[in-house]
Amino acid sequence: MSPKQAAKSQKAQFQKTEIRLSGSGGQGLILAGLILAEAAAIYEGKNAVQTQSYGPEARGGASKSEVIISNTEILYPKTTRLDYLLALNQESCDKYAHDLKEDGLLLADSDAVEHVPPIKVISLPLVRTARDKVGRIMTTNIVSLGALVGLSQVISVASLEKAVLSRVPKGTEELNLSALKYGLELAEEGKKYLEE
Amino acid sequence: MSPKQAAKSQKAQFQKTEIRLSGSGGQGLILAGLILAEAAAIYEGKNAVQTQSYGPEARGGASKSEVIISNTEILYPKTTRLDYLLALNQESCDKYAHDLKEDGLLLADSDAVEHVPPIKVISLPLVRTARDKVGRIMTTNIVSLGALVGLSQVISVASLEKAVLSRVPKGTEELNLSALKYGLELAEEGKKYLEE
Repeated sequence: MSPKQAAKSQKAQFQKTEIRLSGSGGQGLILAGLILAEAAAIYEGKNAVQTQSYGPEARGGASKSEVIISNTEILYPKTTRLDYLLALNQESCDKYAHDLKEDGLLLADSDAVEHVPPIKVISLPLVRTARDKVGRIMTTNIVSLGALVGLSQVISVASLEKAVLSRVPKGTEELNLSALKYGLELAEEGKKYLEE
Repeated sequence: MSPKQAAKSQKAQFQKTEIRLSGSGGQGLILAGLILAEAAAIYEGKNAVQTQSYGPEARGGASKSEVIISNTEILYPKTTRLDYLLALNQESCDKYAHDLKEDGLLLADSDAVEHVPPIKVISLPLVRTARDKVGRIMTTNIVSLGALVGLSQVISVASLEKAVLSRVPKGTEELNLSALKYGLELAEEGKKYLEE
């Protein structure tokens, strides 16, 4: 096993993973956070805390949703240093990238986020995939979840699918499963950049 | 102004209110928490944090959702001592009543919660009102929100209405406004007991 693989293997036995999903109001990030937390907690037997904090920026149209996933009880429900940050717009990237751990991963929308800091970043066309491939821009949140879970493997795809199906509006199940699939495909593309 | 009125007036300028909504999965308490937080933050200019914590009890079918509302920035997002606890079943009441402040209020479903501790309690037929008066048991969450806001006045009814309308599934707006109205009426009934 290479050192890199050993590190990965160790990561698979993580104690705690902190994730922030950020972008604009209306992008469904709160629902995405709920789905991620419920996938981890209800379908995967982990502990999870999911939080929305609303301040002046919420009234300005920004949206953020946080999820902490852990194998043990979560005593402090606020994120401290992020393992993963999803940024669907430039403002979110600028505001939150410094909250990432040193080896944390920024997953950015490649069209909306033009300037990224010199950290571990994967830029993927999340919004564009939702709009052009899934055919509904409102599935950006599920495309993004698929990409995030594909990259992080913080939960299994099977758990994520179950949580998506239990939470999305009736009649949109197929659409959202399609969005999930496209998100996972994007993650596979993204991984190639990480491994380079 | 009587000491009681003075206390009430002071309470109207509260700095921080901590609320927990508890019951069973499927009762819509997470949505209710979101609505309450967004009413406070987006429509009322306050700060709010809304949290779901999922542990083993979530896999057992219990559900809880927390909201902290404050005039100032919320630095610690976990509830410490509750001002209000909604308990829609006995288990939730038993588990969480001791988290209330000394003068905190327990709002309990009068059918589902048969045994209440000797604290400030208002028992109201929340589930029954949703089922029999609104005509849809799935509106229990909104009836409960109406009752809670009517009793606590932590946010205005106008803000609550706006947040309900922005969050409930399309086509259920009238139903949920009706649920809200019934909840507010229950609060008026409940207040009489408190003032006695």
